[in-house]
Amino acid sequence: MNPIKSIFIFIFLYPFSLISQNDSIQIRKIHDLALTNSSCYSWLEHLCLQIGGRLSGSTNAQKAVDYTAKELKNLGIDVIKQPCKVPHWERGKKEVVNMIVGNRKTLLHACALGNSIGTNGKELKAEIIEVGSLDALKNIDASLVKGKIVFFNGAMNPIYIETFRAYGESVGQRYIGPAFAQKKGAVGVLVRSMTTEHDIYPHTGAMKYDTAYPTIPAIAISTLDADLMSKNLKSGKVTCSIQSDSKMLTPVDSYNVIAEIKGSTFPEEIIAVGGHLDSWDTGQGAHDDGAGCVHSMSVMELIKQSGYKPKRTIRCVLFMNEENGTMGAKAYAEASNKNKEKHIAAIESDEGGFTPRGFSIDAKDEVIEKHIATIKKWEKILAPYYLTIDRGGSGADIDALKNQGGAMIGFKPDPQRYFTLHHTAEDTFDKINKRELELGAAAITSLVYLLDNYGL
Amino acid sequence: MNPIKSIFIFIFLYPFSLISQNDSIQIRKIHDLALTNSSCYSWLEHLCLQIGGRLSGSTNAQKAVDYTAKELKNLGIDVIKQPCKVPHWERGKKEVVNMIVGNRKTLLHACALGNSIGTNGKELKAEIIEVGSLDALKNIDASLVKGKIVFFNGAMNPIYIETFRAYGESVGQRYIGPAFAQKKGAVGVLVRSMTTEHDIYPHTGAMKYDTAYPTIPAIAISTLDADLMSKNLKSGKVTCSIQSDSKMLTPVDSYNVIAEIKGSTFPEEIIAVGGHLDSWDTGQGAHDDGAGCVHSMSVMELIKQSGYKPKRTIRCVLFMNEENGTMGAKAYAEASNKNKEKHIAAIESDEGGFTPRGFSIDAKDEVIEKHIATIKKWEKILAPYYLTIDRGGSGADIDALKNQGGAMIGFKPDPQRYFTLHHTAEDTFDKINKRELELGAAAITSLVYLLDNYGL
Repeated sequence: MNPIKSIFIFIFLYPFSLISQNDSIQIRKIHDLALTNSSCYSWLEHLCLQIGGRLSGSTNAQKAVDYTAKELKNLGIDVIKQPCKVPHWERGKKEVVNMIVGNRKTLLHACALGNSIGTNGKELKAEIIEVGSLDALKNIDASLVKGKIVFFNGAMNPIYIETFRAYGESVGQRYIGPAFAQKKGAVGVLVRSMTTEHDIYPHTGAMKYDTAYPTIPAIAISTLDADLMSKNLKSGKVTCSIQSDSKMLTPVDSYNVIAEIKGSTFPEEIIAVGGHLDSWDTGQGAHDDGAGCVHSMSVMELIKQSGYKPKRTIRCVLFMNEENGTMGAKAYAEASNKNKEKHIAAIESDEGGFTPRGFSIDAKDEVIEKHIATIKKWEKILAPYYLTIDRGGSGADIDALKNQGGAMIGFKPDPQRYFTLHHTAEDTFDKINKRELELGAAAITSLVYLLDNYGL
Repeated sequence: MNPIKSIFIFIFLYPFSLISQNDSIQIRKIHDLALTNSSCYSWLEHLCLQIGGRLSGSTNAQKAVDYTAKELKNLGIDVIKQPCKVPHWERGKKEVVNMIVGNRKTLLHACALGNSIGTNGKELKAEIIEVGSLDALKNIDASLVKGKIVFFNGAMNPIYIETFRAYGESVGQRYIGPAFAQKKGAVGVLVRSMTTEHDIYPHTGAMKYDTAYPTIPAIAISTLDADLMSKNLKSGKVTCSIQSDSKMLTPVDSYNVIAEIKGSTFPEEIIAVGGHLDSWDTGQGAHDDGAGCVHSMSVMELIKQSGYKPKRTIRCVLFMNEENGTMGAKAYAEASNKNKEKHIAAIESDEGGFTPRGFSIDAKDEVIEKHIATIKKWEKILAPYYLTIDRGGSGADIDALKNQGGAMIGFKPDPQRYFTLHHTAEDTFDKINKRELELGAAAITSLVYLLDNYGL
């Protein structure tokens, strides 16, 4: 090579390769610390085993607020509890759903949907009408539905590699299916659980009534029970008797937990990372979303441990009430907008504590291409950790911050096991693999580091 | 665009894009079938729950031979049982390892290493000497080791993303550590379990004596017990008493199970895919390597179900005795070489039934670049399934086929959970996720399809 060319290459490439080498060292350090010295696994153990399910408005939810605030404070950083008013729904006594075919009565694996009302201490008994989708119900004459229990049995499509896509296509049955059934004069709703598994576990989750019509009970049944019911319906009439004790109580005061490390150079530019503290009552909220909370707390811990001094303000936000109201997210966005804050980026971890696969980015139409292009460049630095960056959704708790013009980023772990556990009694601490959880914390911290170091 | 340019592009790009579109359709079909209609999960359920641990030479190993041969025959393809002579090692009664510090005796979580001999009905009691590696033992004067129990306590390095690298760096302590200890006059060996977990489960695995010296018992202890022992050694003398009933019996007749679909155009070109039927006795051999066996069986099933007619000969090989002798692999390679066969490629699945991440390729020095270049091109077609292809190792059962000049390929699933379970009583069917297992079968079948369609 001639000397002129060498000098040219040296001048133009040296600074970049040096920067990128420093980044690689910093990101390797973050991973080393996460895999050897992180508190995330023991924090999650406490949230799951010492506290347990953390439904909004419950004593456990308040315990989780106090515990995480204390642990974050122990890192030596500023912590506040940001008030928000949350719905207070209670399941009450165990639901009972019996399927009656001729003289035979079979107890099904069932659990009431979040926000649903109960049967008022009585037994609700009615004939079942099965539909495969929301559209299918729309096309049925109300006279055929009136007085019956609508059974939504559209299965989650198993062929997608991205299981969240299958969930997105089916979950309408659970969320607004009851409202569709109300309009047609149904007296109750049963929903096939949102999972591709064929098992006995019912999956709860939020639903929303149409306030213009009388409210009706809405209950999820396991996929195996749904298959059985559908089979029975093929040969004749099926009746179900339902008892549910669920009720919506008065909203209560609750909190988001917010911890912050102020930026040294651009303190007004905020990079937030968050998960949600509340969970369903049936399990321990291990993957949904204890994992996301301890991921976010770990970002603060790993920054402190690594000795890195952020230029921008790094904020950990543990949102309350993602599951049945997102009132924490609303309170956070409102306060942020009121204070004229600017989130240049926000990362949400709410897809479980599995091996990280990368990130997906969402932003306002006029800025999305710029954000993607900037962040996509970092794929190379993140390649040793098998992390990719693509366009896609972010998360329910940060979506409202998109209006500030920053990049809303969803953390994407491996999605295959999520819907086995999601919203069931099986979402427990023993389903967490320590290394997978720690690698998630490291992946998110690495992206926070890059966002902080380069800005957007 | 001017019409000349259009025609040029049409002529030169059309055929490639058409081929690649057909490949995409075929690979999508393979995934659809795997996720909706595969037998792999139920096959594995039978291997784990109806048969269980399948140590070479055991009744269970023979049951696994008969069961898998029958299931493959049920697919309507040719199946043979290929004879091989395998070692017959038995654990016997539960091992007992007590740690004695002063007057305090603590029962440790222990299990004898495969191929190790027992204590001949007696209790072996001796002082412990701890070393952190094979090299550390090499550098210690034999007079300090003579009459003692060597305790190998080199921990697996937790910071590698590739857990198999950490295993590779540490496993020498287990495999040839006992031989090193024999040479220094030790009377026994304890080995820290090969895992980055801190838990109570001992991990067994093969070891090999130096036949020039007296044999000595060799036993793995859990990592928590190893930590405790090491802590005690820091403040003084530690003695252990060991009882092991392990013995090596006379070699017995066993089999590889081989199923084949003859190629329509190049029947002499073989593409083999395999796992190993034998497993350790402590668990059910679910991830190691029931998963690899049913992956390989699924390749045959998915080819049949998809209606694809292979041009080359596709062979499923379920190897016997990978764990403590690889006698099945030797028998297979010998017969193959004797018959002047040519394996253009062989794929081994022996890293568990976790979400697929891709493949690694090994070949003879003079052909590796060519093979990598050819196969690497297919990454684009496999991108929707998040599969990457890189240079790397293949597997113990196919390594001997490399001499035939083909590509030896290791299937690489996500490696984070493998060493939590590997060689323990915890490697059971409940640790298998159905979708992850099915995606593995689909990934391997997709690569077999590309290898068959294009050759190498």
